[in-house]
Amino acid sequence: MTAAARRRRVLVIDVGGTHIKLWLAGRKEPVKIDSGPHMTAAHMARAVRVITKDWHFDVITIGYPGPVKNDRPAREPFNLGDGWVGFPYQRALHHPVRIVNDAALQALGSYEGGHMLFLGLGTGLGSGLVLRGAIVPMELAHLPYRKGKTYEDYLGEDGRQALGNRKWRRHVFDVCDLFAKALLPDYILLGGGNVKHLATLPAGVRLGSNANVVRGGYRLWLPRERRAR
Amino acid sequence: MTAAARRRRVLVIDVGGTHIKLWLAGRKEPVKIDSGPHMTAAHMARAVRVITKDWHFDVITIGYPGPVKNDRPAREPFNLGDGWVGFPYQRALHHPVRIVNDAALQALGSYEGGHMLFLGLGTGLGSGLVLRGAIVPMELAHLPYRKGKTYEDYLGEDGRQALGNRKWRRHVFDVCDLFAKALLPDYILLGGGNVKHLATLPAGVRLGSNANVVRGGYRLWLPRERRAR
Repeated sequence: MTAAARRRRVLVIDVGGTHIKLWLAGRKEPVKIDSGPHMTAAHMARAVRVITKDWHFDVITIGYPGPVKNDRPAREPFNLGDGWVGFPYQRALHHPVRIVNDAALQALGSYEGGHMLFLGLGTGLGSGLVLRGAIVPMELAHLPYRKGKTYEDYLGEDGRQALGNRKWRRHVFDVCDLFAKALLPDYILLGGGNVKHLATLPAGVRLGSNANVVRGGYRLWLPRERRAR
Repeated sequence: MTAAARRRRVLVIDVGGTHIKLWLAGRKEPVKIDSGPHMTAAHMARAVRVITKDWHFDVITIGYPGPVKNDRPAREPFNLGDGWVGFPYQRALHHPVRIVNDAALQALGSYEGGHMLFLGLGTGLGSGLVLRGAIVPMELAHLPYRKGKTYEDYLGEDGRQALGNRKWRRHVFDVCDLFAKALLPDYILLGGGNVKHLATLPAGVRLGSNANVVRGGYRLWLPRERRAR
């Protein structure tokens, strides 16, 4: 790695349905921008440009709340405005930009080497692998689980509301066990907003945290072999 | 790659329930050894030593009919004798040995780059990914599929017998479609003995062949970035 790469400063833009958070290494708290169903990619870019006018950074990582393919959003977000697919991020933000699914970003920040499966417990159910520092996005959520319903039907927010926390937790454990045996990861990382409703953790399962989003955003710009802790 | 590596000769031992096949690049047909429920690892090693006494090769790849972890069989085989877990292959065969699941070996030989999912249709249902030339073994077979039964219950040999070829084929297509959407591979490779019962192929699905076992055995000794066609 060159000295330049070592000092690379990364702005991390974590795009969410209620807030867009701007993280810069060295700052304790992110700056929050209100988002919502009218927030388009162009609005986001304008707000980011204004707020970060005097900030110093070299590159940008965006955590996107939806599937990402080839470094670009592959589907418009559920809880935001339109215009996210095909938006010229790099041009609008005046910096090199890499985009990755938000659950994957938290996962990469929590990665400790080996073969990691991550599950994002939020409105939906995010999933993917990190293998030798490379993110492998997946959509396990929509596979059949029980009684003609999918993993997401049970583990997503609607499932939690319908089941109640006690039963929902039991299914989280059950699905971790099924996926551990099927995908043979060295460990499972649980992230996403709903991990706060878990009381305990199954063996071989770890918790991600929001702080890992910043680290994930930074690591995305490192070579794959340097992305583990 | 050094010139020595380029010329490396690989003996491939494909261990099956009825035959053990010995493949050497340059020979059109493998030499077959009868196997069966009394075939132990020690028997195999003795037979291989006798048959290959005058053969010239540098290293050995073994395709093993069961899960492999850290280059070693992780469970005794279903249709063979015992003693396969913990056997000193390298010492008994007098050559460096790498061991890999038999379906994974065929998969590696068929790999054409990118993100490949392979499914082995045989007695059971083998599965795994090949990602940037690295084999990622999986056991998707035992996840729930329909009516409280697993993918293997439907797609394995017992399932084919119970369903008949027509319905079995429909489920093979259905599972390819589910896995394509869940694991997001660039393409799916179907291998294993039962591919002969397929009449057509779904879009994005390719067929492996036995010849690919030899190529897989050879590629296993190449650096990962040189393993695609």
